[in-house]
Amino acid sequence: MSIRQLAQDCRQAAQQVAALSSEGKVALLLAMADALQAHSGQILAANAEDLRNAAAKGMTRSMLDRLRLDAARLADIADAVRHIAALPDPVGRVTRSETLANGLQVERVRVPLGVIAMIYEARPNVTADAAALCLKAGNGVLLRGGSEALHSNTAVAAALHEALRAHGVPPAAVSLIRDLSRGAMIELLQQTDAVDLAIPRGGEALIRFVAEHARVPVIKHYKGICHLYVDKALDLDIALRLLIDGKTSRPAVCNALETLLVHRDVASFFLPLAAAALLERGVELRGDERTRALVPQAKPVTDEDYATEYLDLVLSVRVVDDLDSAIAHIQKYGTDHTEVIATGDAAAARRFVEALRSAVVMVNASSRFSDGGELGLGAEIGISTTRLHAYGPMGAESLTVERFVVRGEGQVRHPLPMPA
Amino acid sequence: MSIRQLAQDCRQAAQQVAALSSEGKVALLLAMADALQAHSGQILAANAEDLRNAAAKGMTRSMLDRLRLDAARLADIADAVRHIAALPDPVGRVTRSETLANGLQVERVRVPLGVIAMIYEARPNVTADAAALCLKAGNGVLLRGGSEALHSNTAVAAALHEALRAHGVPPAAVSLIRDLSRGAMIELLQQTDAVDLAIPRGGEALIRFVAEHARVPVIKHYKGICHLYVDKALDLDIALRLLIDGKTSRPAVCNALETLLVHRDVASFFLPLAAAALLERGVELRGDERTRALVPQAKPVTDEDYATEYLDLVLSVRVVDDLDSAIAHIQKYGTDHTEVIATGDAAAARRFVEALRSAVVMVNASSRFSDGGELGLGAEIGISTTRLHAYGPMGAESLTVERFVVRGEGQVRHPLPMPA
Repeated sequence: MSIRQLAQDCRQAAQQVAALSSEGKVALLLAMADALQAHSGQILAANAEDLRNAAAKGMTRSMLDRLRLDAARLADIADAVRHIAALPDPVGRVTRSETLANGLQVERVRVPLGVIAMIYEARPNVTADAAALCLKAGNGVLLRGGSEALHSNTAVAAALHEALRAHGVPPAAVSLIRDLSRGAMIELLQQTDAVDLAIPRGGEALIRFVAEHARVPVIKHYKGICHLYVDKALDLDIALRLLIDGKTSRPAVCNALETLLVHRDVASFFLPLAAAALLERGVELRGDERTRALVPQAKPVTDEDYATEYLDLVLSVRVVDDLDSAIAHIQKYGTDHTEVIATGDAAAARRFVEALRSAVVMVNASSRFSDGGELGLGAEIGISTTRLHAYGPMGAESLTVERFVVRGEGQVRHPLPMPA
Repeated sequence: MSIRQLAQDCRQAAQQVAALSSEGKVALLLAMADALQAHSGQILAANAEDLRNAAAKGMTRSMLDRLRLDAARLADIADAVRHIAALPDPVGRVTRSETLANGLQVERVRVPLGVIAMIYEARPNVTADAAALCLKAGNGVLLRGGSEALHSNTAVAAALHEALRAHGVPPAAVSLIRDLSRGAMIELLQQTDAVDLAIPRGGEALIRFVAEHARVPVIKHYKGICHLYVDKALDLDIALRLLIDGKTSRPAVCNALETLLVHRDVASFFLPLAAAALLERGVELRGDERTRALVPQAKPVTDEDYATEYLDLVLSVRVVDDLDSAIAHIQKYGTDHTEVIATGDAAAARRFVEALRSAVVMVNASSRFSDGGELGLGAEIGISTTRLHAYGPMGAESLTVERFVVRGEGQVRHPLPMPA
């Protein structure tokens, strides 16, 4: 089937998803979770085939690990779908209501976006997760995963389709795209009549490709260069905890720290302790001259380092003259993802929050909380550094938009004498 | 100066706009309004030159009228800026706040988008209006008006720049683009590093050009085919009022009615009365066969008519079997702008509202209220039928986005033993 036809069919099916009641959506998502586990034999067999092909092609161990499913991981995926089922329904929520002087009652009410195109790489869990979140918010979804996971994704989609059919929703509401050519992706990204939003998730090259070719709206983030600024009003214990958690608890994710900025007044006290803790955990340090005077193990840092998302156990370190210098550094090198200040000074915290317009700004909390699940959204379809529609972690609500519902009793703008 | 440089300078200047306090923005906008009136001599002289050039080129009377300024219209423009000054500041507003189980305090706070590119045609009032709304929401703005209004827009911008300078804001925060070539517009629409959003306002050709060439996000509406459905639970007085106001009070605007759908049970009673009132006001009627059986003056309607935004005293009319047929007609021909039901039946109203996902759905109120000023937004930068970010009339708040501010006391995701 052509990409255009797939997208049009998804749009049609999405109208039926939008018409489901909250209870209907809960039942559908629970059935999807059950179907994933009922189909575990087929899904794991398909995954084994993907793993064999990937190993034969020489895929790295860490990528193989991301691709691998087993019974426990599949149970986690099903549980994640059940968790999404239990979230509040964002659709139909009245966010504002007022009665105007002329008696018109004006409400803002959330409606689904329509059809979401998810474009992602080799993690088969995204297939079930994204489908569940899009359906929860009343949308259809077009899933374009990586070629390495095609058999796994096909088996997952087959399970989901069984649940959709059982609930009277056309399987086209969750469509897996099996033509993984670049031409097909470009065609998908140009279906302005059928696709309301594209969300790319993966490496920077994939995301730039999507942004370059899309005619449909795209919400994305290229990279997360997250900063921790340690202020002169220092609580040593808090600053060290945020640093170690931010850099070492999971270095390969976008909310890990990439740069440490330290106020010069506390650098000689803080940096040697911080460096010892990081070096002990295998972190490579790259510092400016003032840092290297205090931490001889640090290599010289470059401008390019400051602009690099290492996604690894490497950290850029810089001593700054004051809060404003830290802010200026972040404004220059930041990617609008997540910035953290460690300070005991409320005024400094306020200034940091107000001066920076990144998607997430934190005071005395780890950058690793910059995640939809951790920030109370219940789940996450992605993180946006596009300063439009959604900014920061995106949950089910980000897959809806507010529209106007107006109720009157015959009000008009220009009252005229009525005809006889 | 190159478009790229203009956009970068605007981005820099926008940071200073974003840093203004609410009071600072009010003072700036009031000064802008005063400057418009203080410069009225220069602005009206520049407008006279535009009018001479336009007349020499054979511009139509109605377009000349839209281009024309006089002292009264300029006073209205200044008053509109004062009105925007007095609106609540959307920036810094905390829209949600919760404390999570781990003690993190998570707030959603509105921040400016950054830089808006406004692309519009020959109405010089948009120049002042758009500048005021963008500044109110803490943004910079790049203004690309029509060539017919270039002298007027230049004079208006000069007045605004005087106020900006007097308030310590670089004039680049409100930049008028003077290179009106297609190449320059395409370049503007590709400044993804500097421009956060493009809003085109004007004819469908302009908007399609913008959508076609933009790499920056675009919020737009192509056309407004607004429908009035007259239900069988008829209040004659209300239905007639909504019809006459919607079609005749200002037919050339996007929230005017283009199509009337009438339930067959009331058609023989309602349509002759409605037709008499409309014909008396010079409206041309185009109807389906059942309509023409009741209203002989109606010409035959075509599928193309149903898909046409007349922007004129012409109305498509169709008799439908029931509410669901009306909904199906709107789903097929609608443009997601504004739909109205006239009914005394609460269940029918609810079904109409729920089944349609247009930006504005109204019960017993005129489509002509589909406007930011009329719906309580205080002012309007445009209307969006892009189902993303903003859907329907857009006020100052639509020029901001919610981000996350998180406050903790040293919380981390993976507590570890601390180093000595």
